[in-house]
Amino acid sequence: MLNSDSTPPSMPVPCPELLSPYEQQVDALIEVGRIFWQRGWSVGTSSSYSAVVNDTPRQLLLTASGKHKGRLTREDFVLVDAQGEPTQAGQPKSPAEALLHCVAAECQGVGAILHTHSVWSTVLSDRFYPQGGILLEGYEMLKELSGVTTHQHAEWLPIFDNTQDIPELAAQVRATLLLAEQESSRAALHCFIIRRHGIYTWGKDVDEAFRQIEVLEFLLECLGRSATLGA
Amino acid sequence: MLNSDSTPPSMPVPCPELLSPYEQQVDALIEVGRIFWQRGWSVGTSSSYSAVVNDTPRQLLLTASGKHKGRLTREDFVLVDAQGEPTQAGQPKSPAEALLHCVAAECQGVGAILHTHSVWSTVLSDRFYPQGGILLEGYEMLKELSGVTTHQHAEWLPIFDNTQDIPELAAQVRATLLLAEQESSRAALHCFIIRRHGIYTWGKDVDEAFRQIEVLEFLLECLGRSATLGA
Amino acid sequence: MLNSDSTPPSMPVPCPELLSPYEQQVDALIEVGRIFWQRGWSVGTSSSYSAVVNDTPRQLLLTASGKHKGRLTREDFVLVDAQGEPTQAGQPKSPAEALLHCVAAECQGVGAILHTHSVWSTVLSDRFYPQGGILLEGYEMLKELSGVTTHQHAEWLPIFDNTQDIPELAAQVRATLLLAEQESSRAALHCFIIRRHGIYTWGKDVDEAFRQIEVLEFLLECLGRSATLGA
Amino acid sequence: MLNSDSTPPSMPVPCPELLSPYEQQVDALIEVGRIFWQRGWSVGTSSSYSAVVNDTPRQLLLTASGKHKGRLTREDFVLVDAQGEPTQAGQPKSPAEALLHCVAAECQGVGAILHTHSVWSTVLSDRFYPQGGILLEGYEMLKELSGVTTHQHAEWLPIFDNTQDIPELAAQVRATLLLAEQESSRAALHCFIIRRHGIYTWGKDVDEAFRQIEVLEFLLECLGRSATLGA
Repeated sequence: MLNSDSTPPSMPVPCPELLSPYEQQVDALIEVGRIFWQRGWSVGTSSSYSAVVNDTPRQLLLTASGKHKGRLTREDFVLVDAQGEPTQAGQPKSPAEALLHCVAAECQGVGAILHTHSVWSTVLSDRFYPQGGILLEGYEMLKELSGVTTHQHAEWLPIFDNTQDIPELAAQVRATLLLAEQESSRAALHCFIIRRHGIYTWGKDVDEAFRQIEVLEFLLECLGRSATLGA
Repeated sequence: MLNSDSTPPSMPVPCPELLSPYEQQVDALIEVGRIFWQRGWSVGTSSSYSAVVNDTPRQLLLTASGKHKGRLTREDFVLVDAQGEPTQAGQPKSPAEALLHCVAAECQGVGAILHTHSVWSTVLSDRFYPQGGILLEGYEMLKELSGVTTHQHAEWLPIFDNTQDIPELAAQVRATLLLAEQESSRAALHCFIIRRHGIYTWGKDVDEAFRQIEVLEFLLECLGRSATLGA
Repeated sequence: MLNSDSTPPSMPVPCPELLSPYEQQVDALIEVGRIFWQRGWSVGTSSSYSAVVNDTPRQLLLTASGKHKGRLTREDFVLVDAQGEPTQAGQPKSPAEALLHCVAAECQGVGAILHTHSVWSTVLSDRFYPQGGILLEGYEMLKELSGVTTHQHAEWLPIFDNTQDIPELAAQVRATLLLAEQESSRAALHCFIIRRHGIYTWGKDVDEAFRQIEVLEFLLECLGRSATLGA
Repeated sequence: MLNSDSTPPSMPVPCPELLSPYEQQVDALIEVGRIFWQRGWSVGTSSSYSAVVNDTPRQLLLTASGKHKGRLTREDFVLVDAQGEPTQAGQPKSPAEALLHCVAAECQGVGAILHTHSVWSTVLSDRFYPQGGILLEGYEMLKELSGVTTHQHAEWLPIFDNTQDIPELAAQVRATLLLAEQESSRAALHCFIIRRHGIYTWGKDVDEAFRQIEVLEFLLECLGRSATLGA
């Protein structure tokens, strides 16, 4: 059962041998799950978290499918390749969205990817889908996003329609991320949203990605609560 | 008194002899109460939780009447039969709604039933009562419900009017659950709501039922917050 | 400083001699403060909590003035008489509203009084002041209030205008409480609200009063959130 | 990584020698960060906290730039002079807004300054910017602000437009604070707000400033939630 205070077990199980070199990242992602579950951003077995642990060839440490994020253990992870396929047989099941983590990992300097499901990102993804995304401007908190140095910044959060066809979605996301990196008119994207589903963000490591989720959730809540105020 | 951090007592009392075979389920339900009280889904002595511990004849382990859900002890449970009657005298009082747990337990593969009272389920039960229920469609989070494999799913949450006549309510609920199991046009129900009262959900075990409450509460909050957004 | 997790100090100071017979109630009220501070119902030094510790003559154990409710210690209490005056010199300062606790303590079977300041009670007290109070009807949760046995119950929460003239306010409250006890048409009141200020509730002991605050806050949040939903 | 329960490490590192005389204030500000991060008032590395540790010449102990407020350590602080410049080389980076802490420290009896970023202060700063500030009147909770003795008090929260030009902003703030101290018609200000950015408040010590943030956040939430209620 979950611990109401989500304190780590006194004696954690050791990592499976395949993952033992990455124990630090495993434990960091377990902690991310505890905090996000408490925040209500990763209820049930929803959400997935990853860390890039090798570059050539690229390999990601990824939360396995169907694990409750509030009580992840060191045995709830899978090592996948650049296509999201397990690097070895005999591992826990890779989640359906593994490929989306891999696509985000193709961006410059990405070391960790966090996918969460919050109420505000779900509600606002539906509201702003007709515009194709959410534009956040003029908030000081935008400076918490990597590479942003002023509140006078226009942050674009693209929204993709939800689908169970992950390869198709991955292709759309890859095209959008590449375009953003090429455009000189705008800083690269810091996240993308899937309609009525959730948000993906990333950073150079787990801590940076964690901070970006905190900040994006804050900004989305600001946007949502502003919309609840009467005239 | 409650513990502000709801940590379990260092030395829990042993289970009464009658319940000692079910100590694991007792402790799981105690933990459910701690977490749901913290979430605000089970304030005061409201709510009731059960686990099916025997099939032939069916017996349920059930939270006793009038116990604060944030500080349940191993002495706050009662063993009831398929009609919600205590299997033995001398046990704590069975809650008035015991029969509703028993009706839910009649469904295929149900091993645990959780009844909670949240603000959003209360508020929305009132708003949607005229339609007879709440229809949730198109949310990725629906896939967290047992047996749902795509967001393109229409989940029906039937709403019954509140009454203190539990046998009458139990008859209505039984009829609705049976109809849902027979209908080929729709997956079986995952919960039912009582107007201005609360929600009942279930799963093959306590963990599955716990996850379903988390997910249903998330979806109801999405619905509620969407309704607070201006045009 | 406050503890972020509000865990009790490992070695609490002993109670002052005058209060040592009431150590259990002192600790219960300290715990109430920890929980209510975490809930946001008692920020800063606002709120006051009491327990009736003697009947003839009536004496109340009361939180002293100006103490932060999230970190009460055994030295932050004062013993007062039926007029709210300290029973002895040399005690911490009695709060200005001591007399309101005494008035509530005049009701049948009242053993503890809790005064809190929540966002919803503040917001709704302002909205419903023109009607003289808030009427809560048809909620199952009403059954958590002492003596209420059905959801088909009309609970009246009278609202008094705020004032710094406590004796005048106490006189108004006393008159209203007496009238409610005499009226056969309605159960006695379970609380009263002061406009843009907060709520007072009571019970036979600290646990019952605690439960009633939980329940009243739940019901007020239901009322408030219902009002935020669009047509 | 962050601790989900934000409990302090069992063996904290010692303070750097320069700060060792101020270890108590360092630990108090670390605790402020833990609590404010949990409350959602200081996400990511946003916010800054300070304590005045010397008067002639004035020196402030200040959170360093770019530190996550939920997991501050004793090495995440910098000692600055009255202009916000580090008193010595070799310290962690002073935050850009150091000068704003120094300006607040120029007011009578200010011993600590807390700068936070909450959702409500951000949302309302935008809504009330056209009026130049927020006027809070008639709330009992206003009495929690230092020097306020009645709810019949008009508290003015001035709102400044956001800018990355801190010296310019500091000049505006200084002028406003001085004017408020001179005006006999109104008590001195207790805080100021920066549009779409956050709030600065202060007190004679960390505890008083902490209490004022709690109270101001409470009052802003009351104002915000009132605006969400339909007619």
